[in-house]
Amino acid sequence: MGGEKQSMKPIHVFSGSSHPELAREVCGLLGVGCAKSSTISFSNENLLVHVEEDVRGCDTFVIGTASSPLHTNMMEIFILCDTLRAYGARTITAVIPYFPYIRSDKQDRAGVVVVARLVASLLETSGATSVLLLDLHAPQEQGFFRIPAHVLTARHLLADHLRTFDLSDAVLVSPDAGEVKDLEPFTEMLNLPMAVIDKRRVDDTETPHSRGIVGDVEGRTAILIDDEIASAGTMCASAEFLMSRGARRVWAMCTHPVFSGNAIERLRRSAIEKIIVSNSLPISESKRLDNLTVLSVAPILADAMRHFWG
Amino acid sequence: MGGEKQSMKPIHVFSGSSHPELAREVCGLLGVGCAKSSTISFSNENLLVHVEEDVRGCDTFVIGTASSPLHTNMMEIFILCDTLRAYGARTITAVIPYFPYIRSDKQDRAGVVVVARLVASLLETSGATSVLLLDLHAPQEQGFFRIPAHVLTARHLLADHLRTFDLSDAVLVSPDAGEVKDLEPFTEMLNLPMAVIDKRRVDDTETPHSRGIVGDVEGRTAILIDDEIASAGTMCASAEFLMSRGARRVWAMCTHPVFSGNAIERLRRSAIEKIIVSNSLPISESKRLDNLTVLSVAPILADAMRHFWG
Amino acid sequence: MGGEKQSMKPIHVFSGSSHPELAREVCGLLGVGCAKSSTISFSNENLLVHVEEDVRGCDTFVIGTASSPLHTNMMEIFILCDTLRAYGARTITAVIPYFPYIRSDKQDRAGVVVVARLVASLLETSGATSVLLLDLHAPQEQGFFRIPAHVLTARHLLADHLRTFDLSDAVLVSPDAGEVKDLEPFTEMLNLPMAVIDKRRVDDTETPHSRGIVGDVEGRTAILIDDEIASAGTMCASAEFLMSRGARRVWAMCTHPVFSGNAIERLRRSAIEKIIVSNSLPISESKRLDNLTVLSVAPILADAMRHFWG
Amino acid sequence: MGGEKQSMKPIHVFSGSSHPELAREVCGLLGVGCAKSSTISFSNENLLVHVEEDVRGCDTFVIGTASSPLHTNMMEIFILCDTLRAYGARTITAVIPYFPYIRSDKQDRAGVVVVARLVASLLETSGATSVLLLDLHAPQEQGFFRIPAHVLTARHLLADHLRTFDLSDAVLVSPDAGEVKDLEPFTEMLNLPMAVIDKRRVDDTETPHSRGIVGDVEGRTAILIDDEIASAGTMCASAEFLMSRGARRVWAMCTHPVFSGNAIERLRRSAIEKIIVSNSLPISESKRLDNLTVLSVAPILADAMRHFWG
Amino acid sequence: MGGEKQSMKPIHVFSGSSHPELAREVCGLLGVGCAKSSTISFSNENLLVHVEEDVRGCDTFVIGTASSPLHTNMMEIFILCDTLRAYGARTITAVIPYFPYIRSDKQDRAGVVVVARLVASLLETSGATSVLLLDLHAPQEQGFFRIPAHVLTARHLLADHLRTFDLSDAVLVSPDAGEVKDLEPFTEMLNLPMAVIDKRRVDDTETPHSRGIVGDVEGRTAILIDDEIASAGTMCASAEFLMSRGARRVWAMCTHPVFSGNAIERLRRSAIEKIIVSNSLPISESKRLDNLTVLSVAPILADAMRHFWG
Amino acid sequence: MGGEKQSMKPIHVFSGSSHPELAREVCGLLGVGCAKSSTISFSNENLLVHVEEDVRGCDTFVIGTASSPLHTNMMEIFILCDTLRAYGARTITAVIPYFPYIRSDKQDRAGVVVVARLVASLLETSGATSVLLLDLHAPQEQGFFRIPAHVLTARHLLADHLRTFDLSDAVLVSPDAGEVKDLEPFTEMLNLPMAVIDKRRVDDTETPHSRGIVGDVEGRTAILIDDEIASAGTMCASAEFLMSRGARRVWAMCTHPVFSGNAIERLRRSAIEKIIVSNSLPISESKRLDNLTVLSVAPILADAMRHFWG
Repeated sequence: MGGEKQSMKPIHVFSGSSHPELAREVCGLLGVGCAKSSTISFSNENLLVHVEEDVRGCDTFVIGTASSPLHTNMMEIFILCDTLRAYGARTITAVIPYFPYIRSDKQDRAGVVVVARLVASLLETSGATSVLLLDLHAPQEQGFFRIPAHVLTARHLLADHLRTFDLSDAVLVSPDAGEVKDLEPFTEMLNLPMAVIDKRRVDDTETPHSRGIVGDVEGRTAILIDDEIASAGTMCASAEFLMSRGARRVWAMCTHPVFSGNAIERLRRSAIEKIIVSNSLPISESKRLDNLTVLSVAPILADAMRHFWG
Repeated sequence: MGGEKQSMKPIHVFSGSSHPELAREVCGLLGVGCAKSSTISFSNENLLVHVEEDVRGCDTFVIGTASSPLHTNMMEIFILCDTLRAYGARTITAVIPYFPYIRSDKQDRAGVVVVARLVASLLETSGATSVLLLDLHAPQEQGFFRIPAHVLTARHLLADHLRTFDLSDAVLVSPDAGEVKDLEPFTEMLNLPMAVIDKRRVDDTETPHSRGIVGDVEGRTAILIDDEIASAGTMCASAEFLMSRGARRVWAMCTHPVFSGNAIERLRRSAIEKIIVSNSLPISESKRLDNLTVLSVAPILADAMRHFWG
Repeated sequence: MGGEKQSMKPIHVFSGSSHPELAREVCGLLGVGCAKSSTISFSNENLLVHVEEDVRGCDTFVIGTASSPLHTNMMEIFILCDTLRAYGARTITAVIPYFPYIRSDKQDRAGVVVVARLVASLLETSGATSVLLLDLHAPQEQGFFRIPAHVLTARHLLADHLRTFDLSDAVLVSPDAGEVKDLEPFTEMLNLPMAVIDKRRVDDTETPHSRGIVGDVEGRTAILIDDEIASAGTMCASAEFLMSRGARRVWAMCTHPVFSGNAIERLRRSAIEKIIVSNSLPISESKRLDNLTVLSVAPILADAMRHFWG
Repeated sequence: MGGEKQSMKPIHVFSGSSHPELAREVCGLLGVGCAKSSTISFSNENLLVHVEEDVRGCDTFVIGTASSPLHTNMMEIFILCDTLRAYGARTITAVIPYFPYIRSDKQDRAGVVVVARLVASLLETSGATSVLLLDLHAPQEQGFFRIPAHVLTARHLLADHLRTFDLSDAVLVSPDAGEVKDLEPFTEMLNLPMAVIDKRRVDDTETPHSRGIVGDVEGRTAILIDDEIASAGTMCASAEFLMSRGARRVWAMCTHPVFSGNAIERLRRSAIEKIIVSNSLPISESKRLDNLTVLSVAPILADAMRHFWG
Repeated sequence: MGGEKQSMKPIHVFSGSSHPELAREVCGLLGVGCAKSSTISFSNENLLVHVEEDVRGCDTFVIGTASSPLHTNMMEIFILCDTLRAYGARTITAVIPYFPYIRSDKQDRAGVVVVARLVASLLETSGATSVLLLDLHAPQEQGFFRIPAHVLTARHLLADHLRTFDLSDAVLVSPDAGEVKDLEPFTEMLNLPMAVIDKRRVDDTETPHSRGIVGDVEGRTAILIDDEIASAGTMCASAEFLMSRGARRVWAMCTHPVFSGNAIERLRRSAIEKIIVSNSLPISESKRLDNLTVLSVAPILADAMRHFWG
Repeated sequence: MGGEKQSMKPIHVFSGSSHPELAREVCGLLGVGCAKSSTISFSNENLLVHVEEDVRGCDTFVIGTASSPLHTNMMEIFILCDTLRAYGARTITAVIPYFPYIRSDKQDRAGVVVVARLVASLLETSGATSVLLLDLHAPQEQGFFRIPAHVLTARHLLADHLRTFDLSDAVLVSPDAGEVKDLEPFTEMLNLPMAVIDKRRVDDTETPHSRGIVGDVEGRTAILIDDEIASAGTMCASAEFLMSRGARRVWAMCTHPVFSGNAIERLRRSAIEKIIVSNSLPISESKRLDNLTVLSVAPILADAMRHFWG
């Protein structure tokens, strides 16, 4: 015999330090305030993460992304999840638009492991009960998780933006045969022709270089499509190669603007006329090139999150 | 205080019912007899699997593949692993050249799961302590396992066989943009040009059909490459399409000869001149077409297995 | 700070392919429609299971039984559970009136495992969070599960049906000393005498045969009771033996009508006058003998399931 | 690069406080000394268990049985296993001839659990990597374990001892229909007739009492067989009932001499002429009745243990 | 499609046999009746625990403490948790004010394990989903749990009671340098000076004895503070030592009144004038010394529990 | 039937980037070469860890410590362990002299978790099968691990070094009552008097400050002892306080030289005459103060590691 439980539990959306702007935008769309937490980094680099909400029995979300400083941000997400677990949250959904080590998704050679799978396991150990992801490097990576994992896509967002331009002479180009699968949804959505840059490795020590192109780019607007732009080396070399093959102009489009190392300088000096990305990662002011368009994935995340508590 | 242990433990290689010929060939190469076990199927379909070796403390292997009857063979592998576990085997390596549900590797749409990942979990639950796989549909599937998983490849075997022919007019063709990544290792190994058939879906209810081709096939020997031939529908339609685009002749090559449904009839009536596959799956006499070449993966498996006990 | 959750979540009862009639009957009694899902079997035997309901946060049930094709039906149940797990069902109760490999419940000899326990583990791995079972071969099998497992019984149903007959000359007979424990609840419920057929194995290679009978059957209605009738070999031989020992007539009663192999032919030609079973397994038209009575366990299942969401 | 490992690791057999005599006898048969450990019980009942051997990398055994004080002895076994795990033993085999809560093996009614299964889980959590058991109440209990579990039997030992007597007028009697399965191996080994005491419960509140007997005991040596004698209530009542039905004399035989509560007094005053048991449990001097024969299971345990390191 | 769930589930607070008075007091404060369960101990020491409430989907609590008989009470708690798990409780919070083996929290020497950590694991295996603890020996022990663990404290309760006395000449004394950390919260709350008895071990075989004192006790009310009083040996010796060093009088205060072995006799004969403890453990009538004050932790537990279902 | 295994497997000791000097010293003492591996950090901060040894079946060690950059070094250790696991190492012992987040070992307040416990879990998930630790902040932290964990100590090393000085006027001082337990082994080993600085917090917002001292320091060599020196704030303030209370001079001694933030500057300007630490963490040239003595723990680690493969 006992008492009755009455109150409905609120939802809590926590943001780590990796992308607070995105978290705020998502909370705004959801009509909730950002849940209160603070993170202090001590002189010995230890983080002190403090969750200031009562999360017992609640559905909770942690919005984090693989931005710099990468491993510190990852640890903050792990600690946040563990804290929500320790204080009795009913569900803990990690919302990670750009997943750490997303390109470490296969054993390229002996002696190396799939780190993205390890990160998935670490996240589960930390207490996450499900994850929301966005445009993985390969859709199979969803299977790295044992907890429910949902993969959202920003491709419609990118495609819709492209549609605002005249695409009559456009061709979608994959910078690498291995990435052609990323092209496919776009060729279907936009009903555009495609081309593939054919790269070859002459010997083991050499970097692969563009040897030829499969498909027709001459006189066309060549739109390079990839899932991410990291150091921008491949993108910029591909753009040059496309121009050398007679492309009228080159655009570049991807979901994840990693922009690491010299990426911004390379892009600034490159033949690429227009760059279209999402805000799955924060882009600092200094990286906001004039020809860069950033589309927000907040509505996509908010829609998916709303479904978790509808 | 106690006694000393003296004897070295033998290795045991078990074969289920799914591909005994391959198991025998592997054992022959390893210089060991096949470990003794028997499987009886009762009238109620229940299997009685009996391991007749003392496996305590031994390194053991179970060779099984996703041949027909699929689910019965899977259950036999699960029971074999569980038996080795129950009787104290030190390690249990499942050697599965064609993995069950290998193409169910991503959530194509809501309400569907990645069954290959589930099978990986079921295999782990059954007691397998590591797995040896061969040419997955996507290399990322290796990450479906939490136990050590090693992916072998038959691609060198296939490429070496191709090299015995005059390839001066050859072009490697992917039947689908989504499979171009499978082409890549071959274009590098054989230094041949490539082409991609560009399929599109006009609307949701329709099957995708070949709309065009990216790359040059006219007057060439078009070699279609995929990881498996199941119902052969795609392969045969692609061959016809390639002929209609002026190919001189069409060959087809893959690792896994699933040959399900009407595959054999379709292949017999198709424009495909030569079919090259491995023996990752058993091929019954009635399926051994005149233009079919079967290359054995037994040496590849045996080499990898030898490493486990060297 | 956050929003409030409002809506109550519905219940979803899914049926695989193993016994849709039973699922429909149960849903009817529960006053809910069958939850929508579809299963397609491809030419390579792979199943495509599609759950068409939004199950997030819901209590769900999967009704499946160990009918033919056994291993395919098992895999369908595993995939259904995994799908409900992957899409966030709050609870997943597998309702399995006839459990697979239920008679593989002890290690009869070295080199053999308890497959029913393995199946229990596979079901847990697939995501089931509890199970409802019916009349196990031994009640201890409930302990094969780590998740909550509840064992229902159809014995009252069978006993109630028997009570509609004149039982004044009846004796309950166990076909085997090992099964006498199954007799006990019936002798108590019906207050009838009992007898046991005493089977012995003369040597290891021989099948055990009836050597004698413990208890009195002469001139009586001998009611053979077991938990299942599979190939019906034991039941039919026992019936003949009872007639040879002077029984007036022989009836047979069990919960699970497996009716595998030549069971129907054997029963048709046997001395058994009346056969009483439950519908824990589907019985095709061709197996519906004239002297067969089938009692529905749907009310028993529905009652227990109702308790899960009351 | 590194050094080579040279030494073979010794075997260690630990004994808790529950049955040191049996452990010593087993060690003697194995030709090893008992591994050194000590257990101190503080005034607050806390145990201090100290393992005094270096067990790193060794195969180890813990011999314990469910003797009194039951829960303290269980905890000692749990701590011993955990200690061997913590100090790096390669394998930890719990040798438990009489398993705790062995008769709590099914859910007799709502609100009660199978405690034997819980104990199995606790033992696994404590670090045991396999178990050796002896004559369970039901063979299905082996399936309560996820770690390898082997069930030994003392039945041949008991049967061999019976064979030293003139059994020409003997009948094997089960005190309860639910225990008839225990009779079966003996009727086969000894080729003797059997009988079953038919107990009934008149209503729920009443203890079941013997209502009749199935089979012939008049003028015979009735040998009551069960897996254990606990309070001896059932055995003594059964003996009286058998004498009242004309038995010439009554013997009682079981594997496990629990002898709890007033068992010894009851047995002393009973009609039972001869009692045959194993030493799966210690029997104090005061319980050693004149008509009690105790057969040692040490050779059975030692044989099975030897197999783990042969 | 399905039905709607309507009813809110009640809370159930179960009490084992270890401290029913405390459970009743807690239930009274929570305004709920104690949930119905019964525990029977058979002559073979096996416990039969019967939960008489329908706990499916409910939040449940088990109140148990490490009182005598220790291991039997522990097993009762394990079985209670397992029963709540087996019958589908939504959450199971073990409320354990005095945790078993709380002082076995570090590996004092080789061959010994941290038993408190093992007990934590056993509790998790039994099904507890979170724990409420009170004044651990070291706060780090909270980390022995993988499930959410919350540590409450009775220190404010003890300090508040002290404040009712004139503390102008008081000094807080730690009986051992290793326990000084326990002193710290009190010195802060009460703003009193502190002292530490400096014990040394002359050689390994000897018990440590008080060698000196750090801090000033002469003419003062020396209040000895520890987390528990078990055999009271240390406390009584410390009191004598303090008196020999000129203390005006000695009081003793702790959370956990273990009072094991000769504790009561020792305390009665000791120099300690006043003893202040909590009721985290039951104190039988015969142990209720005249100078003993017992403060109830029930309000502390009830407050924390209320938070779990508010 | 099968082949015999012949070769003995070598030992492999891997070093991450966190403390290669220590790893080299340990390998030298063990007489093995450092196992080959490489770590590359890409522009996107992702690490590529490559193990260049064949570790199948081998006993392996990973030497890593919580040096800066902390989270990157932690991730490198996780990846190294996961790689050894994936390639079949028999055992993986993480040797971590200074454990990450070692002072986050209790829930200081609501909303905060024990991060050291989380790190222990992450390490287990990464594949470590045991750990070797050194001088934890509290010995209870060993219980944060479920895998075997061994805690070594550098205290004898530090004490032995102290003994080379004239200690006739020495007093061991704890900078905080909470750390007195760290003092205890030293007071016993060196047979020296002790003192404790009594810090108090006046209100919640204030930092605790030294209010008094318990014990006698006037005219003495006060040796401050702690487990680590991080920012050195406490140590330097304590030194000043001791001087103000008449200490002749102040030394500081600890196992772990974290030396974070302004530690070096603070120490240089402080009253501390001599600083004695171990090399559990690397100390860069610029931090090697003239009055700093660094004692190597390599022999302690090597001795313990040798035991794992002796």
